[in-house]
Amino acid sequence: MEDNYKIRVGITHGDINGVGYEVILKTFSDPAMLELCTPIVYGSPKVAAYHRKAMDIQTNFSIVNSAGDAQPDKLSIVNCTEDELKVELSKPAPEAGKAALDALERALQDYREGMIDVLVTAPINKHTIQSESFHFPGHTEYIEERAGEGQKALMILLKNDFRVALVTGHVPVREIAQDITKELIMEKLAIFHRSLKEDFGIDSPRIAVFSLNPHAGDEGLIGTEENEIIIPAMKEMVAKGIQCFGPYPADGFMGSGNYTHFDGILAMYHDQGLAPFKALAMDEGVNYTAGLPIVRTSPAHGTAYDIAGQGVALEDSFRQAVYVAMDVFRHRVVEKEIHAHPLRKQYYEKRDDSDKLKLDTIDDED
Amino acid sequence: MEDNYKIRVGITHGDINGVGYEVILKTFSDPAMLELCTPIVYGSPKVAAYHRKAMDIQTNFSIVNSAGDAQPDKLSIVNCTEDELKVELSKPAPEAGKAALDALERALQDYREGMIDVLVTAPINKHTIQSESFHFPGHTEYIEERAGEGQKALMILLKNDFRVALVTGHVPVREIAQDITKELIMEKLAIFHRSLKEDFGIDSPRIAVFSLNPHAGDEGLIGTEENEIIIPAMKEMVAKGIQCFGPYPADGFMGSGNYTHFDGILAMYHDQGLAPFKALAMDEGVNYTAGLPIVRTSPAHGTAYDIAGQGVALEDSFRQAVYVAMDVFRHRVVEKEIHAHPLRKQYYEKRDDSDKLKLDTIDDED
Repeated sequence: MEDNYKIRVGITHGDINGVGYEVILKTFSDPAMLELCTPIVYGSPKVAAYHRKAMDIQTNFSIVNSAGDAQPDKLSIVNCTEDELKVELSKPAPEAGKAALDALERALQDYREGMIDVLVTAPINKHTIQSESFHFPGHTEYIEERAGEGQKALMILLKNDFRVALVTGHVPVREIAQDITKELIMEKLAIFHRSLKEDFGIDSPRIAVFSLNPHAGDEGLIGTEENEIIIPAMKEMVAKGIQCFGPYPADGFMGSGNYTHFDGILAMYHDQGLAPFKALAMDEGVNYTAGLPIVRTSPAHGTAYDIAGQGVALEDSFRQAVYVAMDVFRHRVVEKEIHAHPLRKQYYEKRDDSDKLKLDTIDDED
Repeated sequence: MEDNYKIRVGITHGDINGVGYEVILKTFSDPAMLELCTPIVYGSPKVAAYHRKAMDIQTNFSIVNSAGDAQPDKLSIVNCTEDELKVELSKPAPEAGKAALDALERALQDYREGMIDVLVTAPINKHTIQSESFHFPGHTEYIEERAGEGQKALMILLKNDFRVALVTGHVPVREIAQDITKELIMEKLAIFHRSLKEDFGIDSPRIAVFSLNPHAGDEGLIGTEENEIIIPAMKEMVAKGIQCFGPYPADGFMGSGNYTHFDGILAMYHDQGLAPFKALAMDEGVNYTAGLPIVRTSPAHGTAYDIAGQGVALEDSFRQAVYVAMDVFRHRVVEKEIHAHPLRKQYYEKRDDSDKLKLDTIDDED
């Protein structure tokens, strides 16, 4: 990648009745953002104009027929929606759901064709988007299936160096314990480790693992999963060279500020990881879908119907989502370059048992 | 209560190998604290002197035979331990467990005899304290049985106006869902409401209730307890005049900062409530045992063996525990006074259906 290469950031508009367009337009009202990347919004120029006018946001955009026509230093919008599409602020509407899905499908198609480098998704309404081709709990699972190439996704919530991933996600509390298996923890640790290395450029990442039960099970008094499942899984991963520590009780770990000493935290379930994460980092929180060939991020917030169209939504989280997508893309390129030209195997003198390099025996072939 | 009455604060020394004495001595190194209350430590003058010397803390104390001998403007220590008691910093030791329990029993005895007004407990080691007379998961349950007079306790973690209580406590995650019943939620809401009113002086408290499942069960897709248990319990309490709102997903609620709009938050289980609470408020967090006739608080931290004896423990949480105990004591006195002399029933003119007060018919009897 050339140093002055501008990353093409595909952006899906999400739910048109929420704060999506507001945070997109606010983010690119800053000319510096257009120097950093070439943003291509998959959505509706008409809806974008509606939101821009309603909230008096000073952001210009160009309408383009295809991502290939996007100009550098401009915010481009590809129309993916039907003409009669109407904005009904704060309302869940099937038309809005369809518009969100149409944008998503067009963006993924362009990604496959190499027209965009990364994908940043504005929030969708998970109910109205459901359809024949979208029957998932959210973006993560949809993208895993459509652009995962068979890889497993891992949701990471992050703000700077504070990164939280989950072993289980959208499952009822009643089912958490039975879903926690040694294999699942090992799988998540492996993806998390690889992502911290390749996507975030951390050479030797340190992962903290939360306990399932309060007080880490208190030596078996409050649950046995720590001793029977979590610790064995961690031991096996440590033997494979993955640095993981714990299991730590979530409350004490967060209270002591220990999270600053780790590159990632693996929580066992949704609220355990996300309640403290959002308490501390919601304002600039980013949701990154690790583990897949595609680079996809989104802001940590949702459609925010309660403040849609009021002009009060903060764009920080969306801007960070753009930054993280670009950072990950660059780290991957670097990682690839590092391994693209491995050092040529040197000649070993095999007549003794030594595995050491014998410099005096190297031939001078290139 | 006279305005210049100095509240007698009983303090148990907790585990002598942790940071208990350090935070107690640091708290009362400030003469202002001795103007606010009369502190009586149940512990060991010898051990106190050891910690004072080891960490060079400039706090004087008087050795007294009984709480009755405690002088105002002085930190008093009642010896409750055996002479040969030795400090082994950072070590779990049965002798330390026994010393912690002896102090606790003496303090509760003095409380029953009216010699102290409130109780502040320094952290114990929950393993070494176990014995024939202490077979509880912690202070809360012990005090509920010994000084509860048949009332149920509710643990509230608080920092200023941020107060979190739990429906279930030290139970494995595997058992949370089955423990969540309509009756239990109603019981906790009733205790929480009464405590916010009587102990914290909030006239018409507003309680936020967390959902059990992620996304509040997402309309039944991720669990049914919200619709079947939590919402019916809340409706019944609202009908009884208790203001409760929700159920809110814990992560979004914490992320939006909505917790600042409520007087209390009722979480469904340990990590859901305590992980975000400690992430935000550990430094000055206080654990208050609501629902009982006795006023008991403690700092939110534990024995902190990892930093015991180093002089680096912060006393803020312990100091706040003393403040909260005093505040609750005063609020209860005020509450009692308010209801001690209710307005005399006025004469109603019963010949019409009106229930309104007829001022012109009031007799002049006192």
